[in-house]
Amino acid sequence: DNMGPLNSNHCFWQKCKSTTGASSSTHLLDLLEEPIPGVGTYDDFHTIDWVREKCKDRERHRKINSKKKESAWEFTKSLYDAWSGWLVVTLTGLASGALAGVIDIAADWLNDLKEGVCLSAMWFNHEQCCWDSNETTFAERDKCPQWKTWAELILGQAEGPGSYIMNYFMFTFWALSFAFLAVSLVKVFAPYACGSGIPEVILNITYTEKTLSQTALSLILTLFLCLGKEGPLVHVACCCGNIFSYLFPKYSKNEAKKREVLSAASAAGVSVAFGAPIGGVLFSLEEVSYYFPLKTLWRSFFAALVAAFVLRSINPFGNSRLVLFYVEYHTPWYLFELFPFILLGVFGGLWGAFFIRANIAWCRRRKSTRFGKYPVLEVITVAAITAIVAFPNPYTRQNTSELIKELFTDCGPLESSQLCQYRSQMNGSQAYPAGSDAAAAPGVYSAMWQLSLALVFKIIMTIFTFGLKVPSGLFIPSMAIGAIAGRIVGIAVEQLAYYHHDWFLFREWCEVGADCITPGLYAMVGAAACLGGVTRMTVSLVVIVFELTGGLEYIVPLMAAVMTSKWVGDAFGREGIYEAHIRLNGYPFLDAKEEFTHTTLAREVMRPRGNDPPLAVLTQDDMTLAELQSIISQTSCNGFPVIVSKESQRLVGFALRRDITIAIENARRKQEGIMLNSRVYFTQHAPTLPADSPRPLKLRSILDMSPFTVTDHTPMEIVVDIFRKLGLRQCLVTHNGRLLGIITKKDILRHMAQMANQDPESIMFN
Amino acid sequence: DNMGPLNSNHCFWQKCKSTTGASSSTHLLDLLEEPIPGVGTYDDFHTIDWVREKCKDRERHRKINSKKKESAWEFTKSLYDAWSGWLVVTLTGLASGALAGVIDIAADWLNDLKEGVCLSAMWFNHEQCCWDSNETTFAERDKCPQWKTWAELILGQAEGPGSYIMNYFMFTFWALSFAFLAVSLVKVFAPYACGSGIPEVILNITYTEKTLSQTALSLILTLFLCLGKEGPLVHVACCCGNIFSYLFPKYSKNEAKKREVLSAASAAGVSVAFGAPIGGVLFSLEEVSYYFPLKTLWRSFFAALVAAFVLRSINPFGNSRLVLFYVEYHTPWYLFELFPFILLGVFGGLWGAFFIRANIAWCRRRKSTRFGKYPVLEVITVAAITAIVAFPNPYTRQNTSELIKELFTDCGPLESSQLCQYRSQMNGSQAYPAGSDAAAAPGVYSAMWQLSLALVFKIIMTIFTFGLKVPSGLFIPSMAIGAIAGRIVGIAVEQLAYYHHDWFLFREWCEVGADCITPGLYAMVGAAACLGGVTRMTVSLVVIVFELTGGLEYIVPLMAAVMTSKWVGDAFGREGIYEAHIRLNGYPFLDAKEEFTHTTLAREVMRPRGNDPPLAVLTQDDMTLAELQSIISQTSCNGFPVIVSKESQRLVGFALRRDITIAIENARRKQEGIMLNSRVYFTQHAPTLPADSPRPLKLRSILDMSPFTVTDHTPMEIVVDIFRKLGLRQCLVTHNGRLLGIITKKDILRHMAQMANQDPESIMFN
Repeated sequence: DNMGPLNSNHCFWQKCKSTTGASSSTHLLDLLEEPIPGVGTYDDFHTIDWVREKCKDRERHRKINSKKKESAWEFTKSLYDAWSGWLVVTLTGLASGALAGVIDIAADWLNDLKEGVCLSAMWFNHEQCCWDSNETTFAERDKCPQWKTWAELILGQAEGPGSYIMNYFMFTFWALSFAFLAVSLVKVFAPYACGSGIPEVILNITYTEKTLSQTALSLILTLFLCLGKEGPLVHVACCCGNIFSYLFPKYSKNEAKKREVLSAASAAGVSVAFGAPIGGVLFSLEEVSYYFPLKTLWRSFFAALVAAFVLRSINPFGNSRLVLFYVEYHTPWYLFELFPFILLGVFGGLWGAFFIRANIAWCRRRKSTRFGKYPVLEVITVAAITAIVAFPNPYTRQNTSELIKELFTDCGPLESSQLCQYRSQMNGSQAYPAGSDAAAAPGVYSAMWQLSLALVFKIIMTIFTFGLKVPSGLFIPSMAIGAIAGRIVGIAVEQLAYYHHDWFLFREWCEVGADCITPGLYAMVGAAACLGGVTRMTVSLVVIVFELTGGLEYIVPLMAAVMTSKWVGDAFGREGIYEAHIRLNGYPFLDAKEEFTHTTLAREVMRPRGNDPPLAVLTQDDMTLAELQSIISQTSCNGFPVIVSKESQRLVGFALRRDITIAIENARRKQEGIMLNSRVYFTQHAPTLPADSPRPLKLRSILDMSPFTVTDHTPMEIVVDIFRKLGLRQCLVTHNGRLLGIITKKDILRHMAQMANQDPESIMFN
Repeated sequence: DNMGPLNSNHCFWQKCKSTTGASSSTHLLDLLEEPIPGVGTYDDFHTIDWVREKCKDRERHRKINSKKKESAWEFTKSLYDAWSGWLVVTLTGLASGALAGVIDIAADWLNDLKEGVCLSAMWFNHEQCCWDSNETTFAERDKCPQWKTWAELILGQAEGPGSYIMNYFMFTFWALSFAFLAVSLVKVFAPYACGSGIPEVILNITYTEKTLSQTALSLILTLFLCLGKEGPLVHVACCCGNIFSYLFPKYSKNEAKKREVLSAASAAGVSVAFGAPIGGVLFSLEEVSYYFPLKTLWRSFFAALVAAFVLRSINPFGNSRLVLFYVEYHTPWYLFELFPFILLGVFGGLWGAFFIRANIAWCRRRKSTRFGKYPVLEVITVAAITAIVAFPNPYTRQNTSELIKELFTDCGPLESSQLCQYRSQMNGSQAYPAGSDAAAAPGVYSAMWQLSLALVFKIIMTIFTFGLKVPSGLFIPSMAIGAIAGRIVGIAVEQLAYYHHDWFLFREWCEVGADCITPGLYAMVGAAACLGGVTRMTVSLVVIVFELTGGLEYIVPLMAAVMTSKWVGDAFGREGIYEAHIRLNGYPFLDAKEEFTHTTLAREVMRPRGNDPPLAVLTQDDMTLAELQSIISQTSCNGFPVIVSKESQRLVGFALRRDITIAIENARRKQEGIMLNSRVYFTQHAPTLPADSPRPLKLRSILDMSPFTVTDHTPMEIVVDIFRKLGLRQCLVTHNGRLLGIITKKDILRHMAQMANQDPESIMFN
């Protein structure tokens, strides 16, 4: 009978347990074919089997649909189930927006606490403290009697070297206290809350409830460090998504469905971090969603919008905008300016490549040496150095977001910044020369010196700070570095144009007295370029920055810079910082963006190869329980192919180690007469056995009857494609219908490392 | 030898022809293993084998990379190859932007030609004609001596029943002439240019050079019909992409790579059609790109931007915007208004469902009856009816884009439209009461009557016009229907609020004299809802309309309406109009959005089933050429599985019918001694034959050694997933390593129809 069990009832728990269907009446389920508790779940840190999870969800959906008409209660349940997807993303959006608002406000307050305190109301930050004071002029709006610096408060004097040292000391003191608090909280409560969170989101590591409150809390405390809050806000949003998904069985019990919520949550996170809802959706599409881009698009969009609206209602910056550094420019750009923009792109790419190498080298050292054993000490040291070096320079002392805002903003009549001190303004001859086409005054030159020093400082500190055991982002520091470089280039081009109006480069479009160069735009282009160099994002980055400026006009400079930065960065190594950290942490991650370009075949990658011991396989009906257990104990594979017989080597299915172990334990507990010499069979009907043999053990219910197979001649590029697109964990290799070997995700990653001339053993897997 | 040919050289032309590799020196290629010309190409209208095409491209890439270092010329060629992707999307963007500008201008001119002509310069449209005239006041800016209506020109008088009839006659005359010209051009030159073009883009049907010029030309001529130009602009952009891809061998020779260009081109098309570059990218992602969403994202974005910039430089509407109906609103919306917005969404969904059913029924009648044989007559009839009914009503007489603009625009002090005649304005008591919170004057009521009639007219005509043999879009007419309905609802709510300020609904937020309802916003929400009901787009639609208004503020009403409209529409049938037309035309299209929710297994779908004749298979080394040819001639399958032997049924590979035929012809022409009783073999080495047998024919080079297989127990949901994600054409079904049957895309579509209780034979395939 060639067709085998085709005409009898089928049972394929592993992939899809069918409970409805025409043929289910022909054969009653016996005890063993009921689902065994525990079968089909995951150990921690295991890769998700997407195919299985999807099937589980469709099965659940079918069950609810078929029950729907039975009663009003079932109908309500089915409605709840259908709406739970929208509910969970709405809740996630609401929570992330609210948390982002709280974090923005608290971070502002904490940051100002390093400088002083508001006497009239302790809970006001510097700006709020001075809102009520009518006695100050507009130019001195930062100075009001209610706001006391620490020197004023403790020493009673605002000026002089003594108070400077006092302020310096208090700044460092608060910085160290915050750092100590943050790292202790993380260490005690939330080991996963450290880092930027984005690699974890990309990788789909699970979040516990604890991480949410801890991330938020320690996030506030660590904002004063060199690093920003944008990455952690994504993390916070994902924590919210994870928590809310526990409320709905549809999401809590299915890892693949939970990933849909996380994908929407990451869109909400970017949306509130940058005030860019559409950019957030594209970010989630470009970086996070591998297996379901279209399906989650709509919900991601909704979550991003809800979060943005909540944040705007909270209005943490008092400007009716979602971010501090929203800007509008009014002058167009000219074709020639593409040249400095591309230069900024080159800088961004170089910075990205340098940063990734240096940061990974440092993190590897931290991982491999004794040094990594003292995370608290490391954080305190970094915080102390940051505080001590940062204080004297006004551009490093202030909040990084505020620095970016200052660098982005164009000089206008109300700008009191040092960066806007141009000569004609100083002379008082004109009300204001609109920033451009004026000789720079000494204030600008000293600002440029300070900015250059700030640039060097930030470049060095960011390398050591990213990867610390505190929640910290990378977006804001990268943007700050790019903005500083961009502003410097912008001012240089501006002065060049001012002194050389007659050069053929400027003659055409930059007349005397005309306002032709916008240094703020250079800062923005530089920020985008540096962020692009580090993360290698493209479309989502341009859209995020586009949403910050709100003008199609400036997309071309942004694209030119981001593209250049990506190409320059890719020339030194194709991995972005998140992929590099994922690899560093040894997760088996198959990057969807990297193309596999080698000509190897499946048989060159599969195991066993050459001198390897033969593949551990099970036969479908002639093994005893003792043989099965010895195979399980002697090998460490996660699963075993099941074949017809040793002679024919024809493949029947695949059984997972975890499921076999659980099934055996379950049978021993529940069934009488299972002994070590019991025959184990995976077929539909028990094999004919001698009369005195013990009761056989049927394991068909845990057998995956539809394992993925490829032939040994299949090019690896196709195999890699299948793994990526279907989210497989393993794939069996056959030749002319006979089982030859197995390829796992880790085999593929090792092979890719080998092809890239790396030592395959250098890849560690957790 | 179980490992078979594992240690010898491999040759797998079908999927990936390896020309480099370590083992290639062990075995010299013989004559037959050289690529046979014609093998690996497609017949017309065949489904693309994505896996094969991708492999071909990677192989080409590897070849270029390996040659790169040989000479400067090869290096230049490799650079050209690397840049050709960017070049082709840039060219596509430039061309689509320019063509869109030309089409916009020409369409404007042609549309005005129906009313009259500019005496001072024939090539000016009405607005341009009156630009120079200083003598007219602002209110009468449409009337100037240079512009003559046909009645003025022919009869010499502008008023009176005679001139009305004259204008009526000329309007109909021009309409008929344009319709006749358009349909004749399409019939003679460009059979593919008819219809909206979007289903063709979704389906990836190939475009010829002719369609471009013809689409553009006939598009201009048919704009006056009820239908819009947006769909055809996508078509035009895709034609440009297709033409430019011929310049680059990388794209012209690979159908899969060409689809990447088409995907970018469709983004450029939407970008210029709606002035929404980001919306265009999302459209291309949501509707067009199935197999490469991330990879083409960046290039699509670039193409969309280039096209938008070119169009803006051309500035066809004189408003520095990409579209005629760009609007900015200044009043916020209130929570209560969500109720009418959702009502508009319900209307949009109902309209969408009704339109799809009615239009498909009409198109089916056209296809199946004698009626469809006279496309020219049909077009002329429709055009005549349109012109005759449209002329008396000013809202149907004018250009549909202009109607939408008028409906979207809020009443302001400069608005002279009938829709803005409110009582206090008429009395002259105030300069202008800002549209809202004023009693409607008779002008508004008569406008509402005319709009209602226009709504009915447009609903009826759109059903009959979409699907005619002229290039025509659906976006603009759908938007017009929604905008009319929305404006009517908006005015109704506005008047309700005016007369009932004290209702609890309005008391909170709509004070006397306050400007609380924006009827233009209702028009926009209605337009989005109707478009959503017809196309079932979601995110891209909201982003497109968001880009038209430029304010995050109004996204929530838009989302509410679009979501409602999609849900209401889906309740009547899940297909959008494009999917419905694709199905109507009988293309084997596996929609990525529809979930497969049944519990069937692969063995229930595969052929042969039940009483079918056994599957036509080839054996690897014991068939003669005559046997092979008789199998080919007796069956109509596109390909044949190759097995080890009839007894074992173990699968070796898959050979395509087309390739076998070509290879046999090639061998007959080139090789001596190939006779009907020649043995055909697919193995690496020739089988041992009796001494007197003729020369055997080796066909290994056309054998696909890595066919996709699934087991008979694989749930169909997984099979459908594999087909969608990998873009397969067929898949073989095995049981315990033995070949059982085959599943093709058409089998899956038939099965899905059967599961949906449709007659599977009702699906016709081209």
